[in-house]
Amino acid sequence: MPKVVDHVQRKRELVESTWRVIARRGLAGATMRQIAEEAGYANGALKPYFPTKMDLLEATFEHVYSSTEERIGKSIEGLRGFEALRAMCLEVLPVTERLRDEARIVVSFWDSAAQDEKRAALAAVSTNRWCEMIATMLKEAKEDGLLRSIPNVESTAEILVVFLQGSQITAVMDPEGFSKQRIINQLEAYLDLLRV
Amino acid sequence: MPKVVDHVQRKRELVESTWRVIARRGLAGATMRQIAEEAGYANGALKPYFPTKMDLLEATFEHVYSSTEERIGKSIEGLRGFEALRAMCLEVLPVTERLRDEARIVVSFWDSAAQDEKRAALAAVSTNRWCEMIATMLKEAKEDGLLRSIPNVESTAEILVVFLQGSQITAVMDPEGFSKQRIINQLEAYLDLLRV
Repeated sequence: MPKVVDHVQRKRELVESTWRVIARRGLAGATMRQIAEEAGYANGALKPYFPTKMDLLEATFEHVYSSTEERIGKSIEGLRGFEALRAMCLEVLPVTERLRDEARIVVSFWDSAAQDEKRAALAAVSTNRWCEMIATMLKEAKEDGLLRSIPNVESTAEILVVFLQGSQITAVMDPEGFSKQRIINQLEAYLDLLRV
Repeated sequence: MPKVVDHVQRKRELVESTWRVIARRGLAGATMRQIAEEAGYANGALKPYFPTKMDLLEATFEHVYSSTEERIGKSIEGLRGFEALRAMCLEVLPVTERLRDEARIVVSFWDSAAQDEKRAALAAVSTNRWCEMIATMLKEAKEDGLLRSIPNVESTAEILVVFLQGSQITAVMDPEGFSKQRIINQLEAYLDLLRV
């Protein structure tokens, strides 16, 4: 029997081993050949699976996004209210080298999405879902008597999602200035504002 | 006497008349020729002043950034505390078509700055300056007895700056979902959290 190459599986492997190269070099400044080489593949290894750089960036963004979702899912398991909120934010805020690399991918994706409605819609769906998740966590905190009296829970949740997005920018622009401790202080300051 | 062409002035004029074309088309998807034509210039008009697209994007970003600073300066004149804070935020939050066009430029700049330390430093300087400005406004609100007791004024100011940055993303990705009213509700919800 001929060997069946699992196309989807192969694409996933390629993205898993190239995404950090892309994050660090930037897609604009690197050729597909360079990315393949730096990740340890032969020249031309990426082309059959990702005909254009944008295909590769899109797959890379999906990889980063689904990794983030998976980590969030695991980290909030069994938690509710403020504890779930903090755990979720710590999977998104760029407080580690890996998360800062992810931020670089996300910033590239946003730029490309600014001129592409399909990509922008993908980003919007996740933003709105996070707004709902965080609003739910705030409502749990309220049920538990831990949330300050807040007239508009939805907007209060949205601020945090917009803050999570903005922090991707800040950490990419100024990774030393916006250190792990400074970012965590911001998160804790926001949680302080919300607590009874 | 030969006519003296003011190079700096000419560059400024070119940026003033091209930046919205750049915002709407995206720099990646357009040639310098197309941008010149759509702004009403002859082919080749931009090239002597901006040898590369990146030169043009950099000048455009500086234009957007200095316009923003100028508007903020005017709008906070004579104001202090929360009033200054709200006025400043309303010059940055993407609540008008013009401000959403500015957001597109800023998002492009951020992507390019992710791989360019000089540009990233430019962004970091303005971020830090805004953090200081907002911290000062919060301290004024405190002096006036309007600020809630907050353990960490600096971090609380930074959250707002990061939120202002994140809102550029949100408005570019989902201009209909993140409507003017929704963004203003977020701002007011944050101010509500800060008030006595």
